[in-house]
Amino acid sequence: LPRQITPIKRSSEFARIARIGKILGVPNAHTVPVGIGDDAAVVRVGKEQLVWTTDSHVEGVHFKRALMSFSDVGFRSFNAAVSDVGAMGASVVGALSAIALPRTLTDKELFQLVEGQAEAAKELDCPVIGGNLARAREVSVTTTALGYVKKPLLRDGARVGDEIWLIGAVGLSAAGLAWLTKRKRMRSSAALGRAAERCVEAFRRPRALLMAGRALNGRATSAIDVSDGLVADAGHIAERSAVRMSISAAAILEQQGEDLSLVSKALGRSALDFALYGGEDYALLATGARRNRPQSARVIGCVEPGRGVVVVDTHGRRASVRGGFEHF
Amino acid sequence: LPRQITPIKRSSEFARIARIGKILGVPNAHTVPVGIGDDAAVVRVGKEQLVWTTDSHVEGVHFKRALMSFSDVGFRSFNAAVSDVGAMGASVVGALSAIALPRTLTDKELFQLVEGQAEAAKELDCPVIGGNLARAREVSVTTTALGYVKKPLLRDGARVGDEIWLIGAVGLSAAGLAWLTKRKRMRSSAALGRAAERCVEAFRRPRALLMAGRALNGRATSAIDVSDGLVADAGHIAERSAVRMSISAAAILEQQGEDLSLVSKALGRSALDFALYGGEDYALLATGARRNRPQSARVIGCVEPGRGVVVVDTHGRRASVRGGFEHF
Repeated sequence: LPRQITPIKRSSEFARIARIGKILGVPNAHTVPVGIGDDAAVVRVGKEQLVWTTDSHVEGVHFKRALMSFSDVGFRSFNAAVSDVGAMGASVVGALSAIALPRTLTDKELFQLVEGQAEAAKELDCPVIGGNLARAREVSVTTTALGYVKKPLLRDGARVGDEIWLIGAVGLSAAGLAWLTKRKRMRSSAALGRAAERCVEAFRRPRALLMAGRALNGRATSAIDVSDGLVADAGHIAERSAVRMSISAAAILEQQGEDLSLVSKALGRSALDFALYGGEDYALLATGARRNRPQSARVIGCVEPGRGVVVVDTHGRRASVRGGFEHF
Repeated sequence: LPRQITPIKRSSEFARIARIGKILGVPNAHTVPVGIGDDAAVVRVGKEQLVWTTDSHVEGVHFKRALMSFSDVGFRSFNAAVSDVGAMGASVVGALSAIALPRTLTDKELFQLVEGQAEAAKELDCPVIGGNLARAREVSVTTTALGYVKKPLLRDGARVGDEIWLIGAVGLSAAGLAWLTKRKRMRSSAALGRAAERCVEAFRRPRALLMAGRALNGRATSAIDVSDGLVADAGHIAERSAVRMSISAAAILEQQGEDLSLVSKALGRSALDFALYGGEDYALLATGARRNRPQSARVIGCVEPGRGVVVVDTHGRRASVRGGFEHF
């Protein structure tokens, strides 16, 4: 008899998270001022407001051994988790690290991974204070980061008339990944080689912008770290703040560095596409009034009445916008 | 040419954790009074002492679908993580849940898992306030729990002359697992059936003893939750406190319930072995002066000068003791 194939019922990530939120219920709003749905959760203990987040990096999904060292995996996953605390305008306290590892992982590989974490922890002044080792069939790192803040900077405060601010570069990480997968064996000029190296470095060794996050606190009306891509993450602010985020392609192109231009051109790809849709740079995207703009922030658009994200192209036309990507 | 086989260099779990601790370094002792090596880490934020732990449950390693429902997986993994906070004598604040799931996991299975977490969260008054979903090849749940405490109850305070206390049952979970794998298709009397059901329930739905943990705080000199097995976890106290833990087999047998006796006998296994070496009941093991013993605690031995764990058998002889188990 043929085995019967039952189709698997799988909702979208968004629908699943919504349903999970319903099953778990809404915790007491005084104790838990911010629950599921922002960069991190906020929980009150005594007089402190704690900012708390967890993030998993799974082999084959979030990283491939062929494209980065285990030290990079440790460094990158650590920065990714801490970045969520930073985007709330919080100061970090420490992190826990749960590592799942197959029997085939050698001591050397495991310790390289931990060395990458240690390096990131030192740079970010966020010590790893505990963790867990578990056997598994694939390598994964789940980092939990804890911080504190007087008033958390959330996704839901953007107001019509605000400027849209970007701190840090976007698109470099995606260009670095594209370079590694498509071009790494081709010859390139010295200038292109150096540019590609910096893109690859952005991909392998992203930096959580903790100081910039704290600088935004008290100035910005909303903030998020760019992990899914500029447009996708602008969409999260738009949705939670019930506004339209209008991003200027000209502003993005103007502030984009030479590295991204060179590498995109060599790859035959659009630098603007990398900047708008490439994720995992961990730049900070925020909104706020002009008078409150911090020095490090560059204006890339404005907040308008409406919903969603639009990109205004260099001819002043509103370009259609692709949605953000889903992990599954 | 034959492929060369390189032997994989893998140290023991203990050696690996020690090396990881060295790589990560020791954080500032004021900010992080307790780092790697206890049930949970302790970190100071403002005037609060936070107790913080992370724990992973991986399919095929910590659970098998054939032996429990996804709801059980959620309930069990949640209690296991929260138990580490409870063993420090702390009050819980909330938890984060990072779930890794393969494409083949259906909505129904995922939501059952979350329902199990929600049930445990409600029972323990420890809301899930955030989390992460990631794609992976195997199902895993990494739960991070946060609590607070005035003075954490650690593993390193046992003193010679203290009594050894046990709160909660041990061995039931291991007997339940053995029953499920060996006997589930055999006929049994009604009494045995009910006893087996309770052992299976202990295996599938263990309970973190939060109230008992808080009751121990201020009374006990050391405490740990029994996750690896009574002897193995007594070994952790012995090592950190630099004492010998002498456990009385007679005391264990005396306080052991009818359920464990019946099921062990039917399986042809030793009830004492289940009690001494079976893990994952999440009972609390503690030490303290006789005058401070809480009502719920039963005396199962005493703290002596020396090192390690000895079990005194029913004839008063010191039995040799098997080591604890390692996950990999």
